[in-house]
Amino acid sequence: MLNQKVNSYYQRPGEMSGLGRFITVEGGEGAGKSSNLAFIQALLEAAGKQVLFTREPGGTPLGEAIRELLLGHKHTGMADDTELLLMFAARAEHLQRKILPALEQGAWVLCDRFTDASFAYQGAGRGIADDRIALLERFVQGALRPDLTLLLDLPVETGMERAGNRSQPDRFEREAETFFNKVREGYLRIAAREPERVRVIDASPALEAVQKQIVDVMQGYLDSLDG
Amino acid sequence: MLNQKVNSYYQRPGEMSGLGRFITVEGGEGAGKSSNLAFIQALLEAAGKQVLFTREPGGTPLGEAIRELLLGHKHTGMADDTELLLMFAARAEHLQRKILPALEQGAWVLCDRFTDASFAYQGAGRGIADDRIALLERFVQGALRPDLTLLLDLPVETGMERAGNRSQPDRFEREAETFFNKVREGYLRIAAREPERVRVIDASPALEAVQKQIVDVMQGYLDSLDG
Repeated sequence: MLNQKVNSYYQRPGEMSGLGRFITVEGGEGAGKSSNLAFIQALLEAAGKQVLFTREPGGTPLGEAIRELLLGHKHTGMADDTELLLMFAARAEHLQRKILPALEQGAWVLCDRFTDASFAYQGAGRGIADDRIALLERFVQGALRPDLTLLLDLPVETGMERAGNRSQPDRFEREAETFFNKVREGYLRIAAREPERVRVIDASPALEAVQKQIVDVMQGYLDSLDG
Repeated sequence: MLNQKVNSYYQRPGEMSGLGRFITVEGGEGAGKSSNLAFIQALLEAAGKQVLFTREPGGTPLGEAIRELLLGHKHTGMADDTELLLMFAARAEHLQRKILPALEQGAWVLCDRFTDASFAYQGAGRGIADDRIALLERFVQGALRPDLTLLLDLPVETGMERAGNRSQPDRFEREAETFFNKVREGYLRIAAREPERVRVIDASPALEAVQKQIVDVMQGYLDSLDG
C-alpha cells in the first residue's frame, strides 16, 4: 500500500502541484537544530504553506514503543541488523501514517532527521555498509526522498562546546569526538553526492548569520517552485 | 557481522562437517506441530545429535518485546511494511544470538517455524508481494536457509476440526478458512519449488502414520549426510 502511495505521489509529476513538499533538517550536536527548525517552519508559514512538523520516530504510539525498545536495549546490546530493521520499522510507520497522508492533503512536512541520519550515524559512524542501509531505504520508501534537506554543518569540537559537553576532554569524550567526526563526514559525502537536494548550511557563526543562509536557501527553493 | 558468520558457515562446504544442521518445521492449525516437533527432537537425539529446540521470536528478551509489539498492535493496526520489518528484526536477533552460535558449536537447531511462514502467512495469506519478503530474507539471512524443512500438511477443514475451532461455521470462521487455504497453498508452492529442502508430510492420518513418514524423511536425511 505504501508503494502505491509513493508511486502515485512521485511518478506523476504533472499532478504534483496540489501536493505538499517534504523538507528534512539534519545536523549533529550543538548545530542549533531546534531553533532553526522553528525558524524554517515560521518561514514556510509566512509563505502561506500549511506545515506539519514532525520528528522520527514520528509520534505514532508504535513508533514510540519501538523507540523505547531501541533505547532500552542500548546497553544489553542488539545485533546491528536488528537495530537497523527496528529503525526502519518505525520509519515505515511514520511515513505511512503521518508523512504521506499530510503530503497528500497538500501540507508541507518539516521533519527533524530522516534516512540521511541512518547513513550518517549507522553507516559512516558505526561502519554498517551503505548498501545494506540503501536496501532498507528502497524497501520502505520506494522512490520517495525528501524534496529538500538542510544540513546544519559545523566542526564537531564547536558543536560539543556549544552543547556544553566539554571541559577537559576525557577518553570517552575523545572517542565521542572521533565518532561524531565520522558522522559529519558521512553527512558531507551525501551533500556532495546530491547537491541539488542537500544544501549545506554553515552553522558555525552566530544564529543571525546562520538564519540568513537559511532564508536564502528557502527563498530560492520557493522561487524555483513558482518559476 | 551476521553476514560474516553466514558466509563462514555456508560458503566453505569442505569445513562444514563439524557444524550442526538447521531443521525447521512448518504447518497450520491442527497439524500436530507440537507433538511432532518433540518426536523429531527425540529422533535426532537418538541419533546422537545435540539438539537446540527453539521457536520464533526465539526467546531473546528483545524478541519477546518485539512479539508483544506485534500482538499488542494487532487491533489498532500497523502498516504491512512495519509488521514485516518487525518480524524480520526479531528474526535477525534470533538468528544472530541463538541459532548461528548453536550451529557453530555443532548443535542441531530444530526451529518451530521460520521464514517460510512469512511467505505463507504474510505473502500468500495477506497478499504481500513475495519479492518484498525475499528482499528482507536476503538482508537478514544472506545465503542461509534451513538445511531441511518438514511441512506438516493437511486440509484446512480437517485442521480446524482437530483444533476444536469448528461447530457450525459462522462468517468469521468461513473467512478464516479462506485465509488458511491461501496459507496452505503458499506452503505447498514453496515445497514444489524446493522439493529437496522442503519435505511434505501428510498430516491427515493418525499420529502413528504421520510419525512413520517423519521417520522415513529423517532417516533418509541422516543417511544422506553419512554417505
